Amino acid sequence: MAVYTEVPEDDLERFVSGYDIGRHLSCKGIAEGVENSNFLLRTTGGQFILTLYEKRVRRESLPYFLGLMEHCAEHGIVCPLPVKNRDGQMLGELCGRPAAIVTFLDGISRSRPTVEHTAQVGDALAKFHNASWEFQLCRDNDLGLDGWKRLADTALDRANEVRAGLAGAIAEELNFLDRNWPKNLPTGTIHADLFPDNVLFLEGRAPGLIDFYFACTDILAYDLMICLNAWCFEPDHAYNATKGRALLAAYHAARPLRDDEMAALPILARGAAMRFLLTRLVDWLSVPTGAMVQPKHPLEYWRKLRFHQAVGSVAEYGWRP
Amino acid sequence: MAVYTEVPEDDLERFVSGYDIGRHLSCKGIAEGVENSNFLLRTTGGQFILTLYEKRVRRESLPYFLGLMEHCAEHGIVCPLPVKNRDGQMLGELCGRPAAIVTFLDGISRSRPTVEHTAQVGDALAKFHNASWEFQLCRDNDLGLDGWKRLADTALDRANEVRAGLAGAIAEELNFLDRNWPKNLPTGTIHADLFPDNVLFLEGRAPGLIDFYFACTDILAYDLMICLNAWCFEPDHAYNATKGRALLAAYHAARPLRDDEMAALPILARGAAMRFLLTRLVDWLSVPTGAMVQPKHPLEYWRKLRFHQAVGSVAEYGWRP
Repeated sequence: MAVYTEVPEDDLERFVSGYDIGRHLSCKGIAEGVENSNFLLRTTGGQFILTLYEKRVRRESLPYFLGLMEHCAEHGIVCPLPVKNRDGQMLGELCGRPAAIVTFLDGISRSRPTVEHTAQVGDALAKFHNASWEFQLCRDNDLGLDGWKRLADTALDRANEVRAGLAGAIAEELNFLDRNWPKNLPTGTIHADLFPDNVLFLEGRAPGLIDFYFACTDILAYDLMICLNAWCFEPDHAYNATKGRALLAAYHAARPLRDDEMAALPILARGAAMRFLLTRLVDWLSVPTGAMVQPKHPLEYWRKLRFHQAVGSVAEYGWRP
Repeated sequence: MAVYTEVPEDDLERFVSGYDIGRHLSCKGIAEGVENSNFLLRTTGGQFILTLYEKRVRRESLPYFLGLMEHCAEHGIVCPLPVKNRDGQMLGELCGRPAAIVTFLDGISRSRPTVEHTAQVGDALAKFHNASWEFQLCRDNDLGLDGWKRLADTALDRANEVRAGLAGAIAEELNFLDRNWPKNLPTGTIHADLFPDNVLFLEGRAPGLIDFYFACTDILAYDLMICLNAWCFEPDHAYNATKGRALLAAYHAARPLRDDEMAALPILARGAAMRFLLTRLVDWLSVPTGAMVQPKHPLEYWRKLRFHQAVGSVAEYGWRP
């Protein structure tokens, strides 16, 4: 939620003139994207998003993220299309930072999604997995099992400040995940962060997907359970089985899950909960007291993890294929 | 630079449907406006700014500000036009706050304006004064002489923390302004905050004026000297006489200054410097140490005040009518 870099107008005009997108009309910093500086850019050629990549995004991964967006946009997924400059490049430099221009996507994110929205997301995620199947580049998941262990190493000595006994419970769960994490499920390109604020709904069109900056190569059904965690729990932390069924059924209809994938859904959901529990815990513990921006509370994902620990089979998610 | 209020999508759609501006396509919080929450709203009918007025803007003044924008837009000034809802009202309510939709204005603000930009602003300010001449509503200037005294009362006991001797110098200057402030100069509607970030330039069009939330009824030539302070000093605090001449000559060409107005320019410039010195001083002293947002340094305006104290006649601003 921040614009980190102020761009002098002359630098901006020089940058925009490197693209064949018409004359620059207006540029407003928008309050989106925690990691990067984003601007809504209007030109005589249309409306675009200009992104300056700040330090936390690894420069060497940018061709992967932009290439993935281009691949998906060209394969029927509703997502931003990176615009190439006159040199044919998707990535340029502005104010000493890597910078890119992508097409603007209309649509409205839903902080309180309905069952219908959730079904649309299941369908869109499956089609994203299908479309990215032929995408050639790979990127390791920094926030997979090894990443969780690294996060735990930095956070566990203070985890009990958040909740008594949390450190031991996380260590035990990590141990379980390490011993039981599935090894032979279909992998591919996953979005890895398809939360409601990254999906733009518009009547008469498939939902638009944005923010590909956690995308990586990992188990496809794990991506589905990240969505289940993000879309199918209510604000009071109750699991909404109607939404769960809608998500899983819509996904399965567009990319049928194998039996071993279905059987693994509960443990994949536990891993997906662990990933967000740990990053939120680290953020929570690293914010100075009295800071203006309060990070998301980690215990939301602790509750989700506890829910999945009690799930024996996929039927308990409200769905029978 | 902040979005203070998060607007639930359903409330937003209900609000937008009260206007005849088409179907809602997208809405992004923009990093503009210190006092209010601003959103860039796209509909099938075009592009708009949605503003939610937060506490610091007085509710009873909103009809004045919106009425002024409407009057100016209808009299040839390039500025946002408030859109009326289906009940014919410019002001509605959203999330428990007064809210308005205005047309979006293309253009780029210039943090490093050229002489040509400065001349354009002089012309635009004069035309704004001419156009608002027939605007019927009045609003007292909260930040006039009496307002400066109130600000000084809250800030002077700590002013010397910012610079040794500052408190005494401000008290002395206020005394001078109180005894010598001109009483019979032409008054009218002034913008009162026409800084470079409130002027949007676009080739082939007069500059667009935005942010009317300090507008009030006061001495017209005082508004001109607020601009001179904001546009005609360089980052190293040097007065740029070429820009000064450009501003004053362009203004005078579109609204000829009377002799008594010209003679008063130096004292009006001192008052204009005092106004921003005091508000910046109050903001500076009220920010807790270690806060993320650093307010603008008050001493910039102390230097400008010192400059004007040494000016004997308008010729020293680089201009002879």
